[in-house]
Amino acid sequence: MLMKNIALLFFLLALVNVYSQSDTEALRVDKERINENLTKLSTFGRDSSGHSYRVAFSDEDVAARGFVLQLMKDAGLETRIDYAGNIIGRRDGKDSKSKPIIFGSHIDMVPDGGDYDGCVGVMGAIEVIKTLDERNVVTNHPLEVILFANEEGGVIGSSAIAGHLNTDLLGEKNITGITMGEGIRKIGGNPDRIGEVAREKGSMLAFLELHIEQGAILENEQIDIGIVEGIVGIEWWDVTITGSANHAGTTPMNMRKDAMLAAAKFTIAVNEVINSVEGRQVGTVGRIKAEPGAPNVIPGKVVLSLEIRDLSKEKIRQLFEMIQERAEQIEAETGTEIAFEHLSTDSYPALTDKLIKSTIASVASDLGYSHKEMPSGAGHDAQEMAVIGPVGMIFIPSKGGISHSPEEYSSPEDIARGANVLLHTILELDQKGL
Amino acid sequence: MLMKNIALLFFLLALVNVYSQSDTEALRVDKERINENLTKLSTFGRDSSGHSYRVAFSDEDVAARGFVLQLMKDAGLETRIDYAGNIIGRRDGKDSKSKPIIFGSHIDMVPDGGDYDGCVGVMGAIEVIKTLDERNVVTNHPLEVILFANEEGGVIGSSAIAGHLNTDLLGEKNITGITMGEGIRKIGGNPDRIGEVAREKGSMLAFLELHIEQGAILENEQIDIGIVEGIVGIEWWDVTITGSANHAGTTPMNMRKDAMLAAAKFTIAVNEVINSVEGRQVGTVGRIKAEPGAPNVIPGKVVLSLEIRDLSKEKIRQLFEMIQERAEQIEAETGTEIAFEHLSTDSYPALTDKLIKSTIASVASDLGYSHKEMPSGAGHDAQEMAVIGPVGMIFIPSKGGISHSPEEYSSPEDIARGANVLLHTILELDQKGL
Repeated sequence: MLMKNIALLFFLLALVNVYSQSDTEALRVDKERINENLTKLSTFGRDSSGHSYRVAFSDEDVAARGFVLQLMKDAGLETRIDYAGNIIGRRDGKDSKSKPIIFGSHIDMVPDGGDYDGCVGVMGAIEVIKTLDERNVVTNHPLEVILFANEEGGVIGSSAIAGHLNTDLLGEKNITGITMGEGIRKIGGNPDRIGEVAREKGSMLAFLELHIEQGAILENEQIDIGIVEGIVGIEWWDVTITGSANHAGTTPMNMRKDAMLAAAKFTIAVNEVINSVEGRQVGTVGRIKAEPGAPNVIPGKVVLSLEIRDLSKEKIRQLFEMIQERAEQIEAETGTEIAFEHLSTDSYPALTDKLIKSTIASVASDLGYSHKEMPSGAGHDAQEMAVIGPVGMIFIPSKGGISHSPEEYSSPEDIARGANVLLHTILELDQKGL
Repeated sequence: MLMKNIALLFFLLALVNVYSQSDTEALRVDKERINENLTKLSTFGRDSSGHSYRVAFSDEDVAARGFVLQLMKDAGLETRIDYAGNIIGRRDGKDSKSKPIIFGSHIDMVPDGGDYDGCVGVMGAIEVIKTLDERNVVTNHPLEVILFANEEGGVIGSSAIAGHLNTDLLGEKNITGITMGEGIRKIGGNPDRIGEVAREKGSMLAFLELHIEQGAILENEQIDIGIVEGIVGIEWWDVTITGSANHAGTTPMNMRKDAMLAAAKFTIAVNEVINSVEGRQVGTVGRIKAEPGAPNVIPGKVVLSLEIRDLSKEKIRQLFEMIQERAEQIEAETGTEIAFEHLSTDSYPALTDKLIKSTIASVASDLGYSHKEMPSGAGHDAQEMAVIGPVGMIFIPSKGGISHSPEEYSSPEDIARGANVLLHTILELDQKGL
């Protein structure tokens, strides 16, 4: 009888799983499983030539969301779809009234995109839950996994949660040919009530996002984990350079008002200004159109794009002012006029939480992974979530720094390392709070 | 009876018009008439908004050619259309076996072109004949006025006369939607027999073309007459710059292989190389395409056009070699590759005849017109005619240097001055030979 009771006690102890420090320290995600799930997810929306078009609101997006929803249920999550079309899976904590720890990312992609951007974060989040579930680890705080709707088309799902979705966007058609509102309805949301998904500031303990770097810094420096310092703000301008279109044969070099020459000087000035200041700001001229655009006509007009990204809005402003000064010199040198039109990107810098950063760093060190702090040059759902509470981001290496391309790749080992860091950061924050 | 005979003698003398130096010195074209004819010609192909689309082989081109043919007949010319569609008007000389003096230009235009390019030369040529006719001046040499077919679409009529028409062009559709061959048939030629219009080298005494400058040198320097030293050769290259397309947010400045930055450096290098050497050569980057062409992607590929024009083929070659050297430096600086593809333009430099140039100069001085020598940066029918004999070109000022545009303008005074120089150059060459 005593033996029987002792056996029952052990059984009950195992069942309740009052986990100890040493128990959770040994916890690791299942590398095979997470990578298998990523591979399965990658089949949704891939065409016969190996290119993927799982754009938000497409039939392929809907099918892939169904696959992920099932994975969430299989991991024991209580799932629902909010009015914005976000798929939310909740796992209760010991204190179900306490603030949740939220983590997740997105699975929609740019046309001809890759299989890792966003997907690693979603599969990583589900793998964390699955790992906790298998080992019967119950956290103090509730956990929430979110698959955000339409990240690539303007962080729609996360900005709805952050409470500042630009509702003008709901009437705009996306690349699938339906409006954002119709798309949200198609994936189970309700655009008429989308305002209701906004969450209060301070309503979460933390938000964490595991993501591929989309740059080549980690790979080049052979570092396992990037700890994101913040997500850069993005500002765009259309720059119109007006010269004088003229016959390329009959107009002597010293009588030209060549908008193309001015555009060349401007492009170099942008590069020089961005490089002239300490820091990791970037500036890009990515689009250019010259008119009339014939080999035998001096261009009278060039329109090009200017993009500046940095963690500081103030620094972006200073860099832009330096570029404006250089533009004035170029106007004088070339006899052209240079006009700037600021375009709204709804993208502002978002810094990550200091304590979350240090937690990620110590977790990575404990796991034996090298790590470094770095900005995120790309926008992410975490940028929106930062509006309502502290956020952190975990980067893993991207092969060749390639992203938004079928060539996107992160190794199974790197993916597992990232998920392990996510897992233990959640457990640390759950224990220590913020 | 004596009085009657004397009167008859005077009558006969007037009829035969054995013209003396002093007779012809006083000869002037009719300024009103030439400008009225130009104005009438400009109505063919003009739409209600004032834009003109008298492209070669269009119905409007056919109608305008009919108008000019009638003017030629009214001026007493014996007219015919050759197999290339050139309209040729002949006026016999005292020595009908001697080599003709040929002069003319074209009336076809680029889409949305102007009313002076080519037309001034054709109307000027007919006005010269009309003036000689009214005053019963008979030259020693036969005179030939030619309205060349399709100048803007590749100097088709004049290159056929020069005997080196690229017959591949006959199968190519022009902007009106019909092939060059069909077009030639439409205007009265015969593409099957076009080879027969080629003339022998040395078969003409001289070819003269009156034309608008299409540049702003004469206007800026307030000079009446430009004496063309030669017509520049034109060479074209497609320049392909290959870098690496990448995320504009996640790729640090020092890890970029930015094809746009390389294109900017290249455009400036072209300008610097062209300006680094004495002379009136010109170099232009007129067309540019960046891929993928989004504000948030570093361009991986830029294709741009390079055009160099000069009177010397050798100088063009040297300039291109200098540009190639600079391109190699830019490749190293930017981590890109720059490839050149030479495109055929069938355009080679053509120098004008020294004696014709000095004749134009002395004629202009005698008429009280200021003049200067200058290259022609644009191609002309005279360039083709230079293959079969000595050529000369007379330029008049273009307002604002504008050409190939509805804004094209030369004043009635300048047009009359140009026609007077053409008239007296013909008479001088007719007297003195070459």
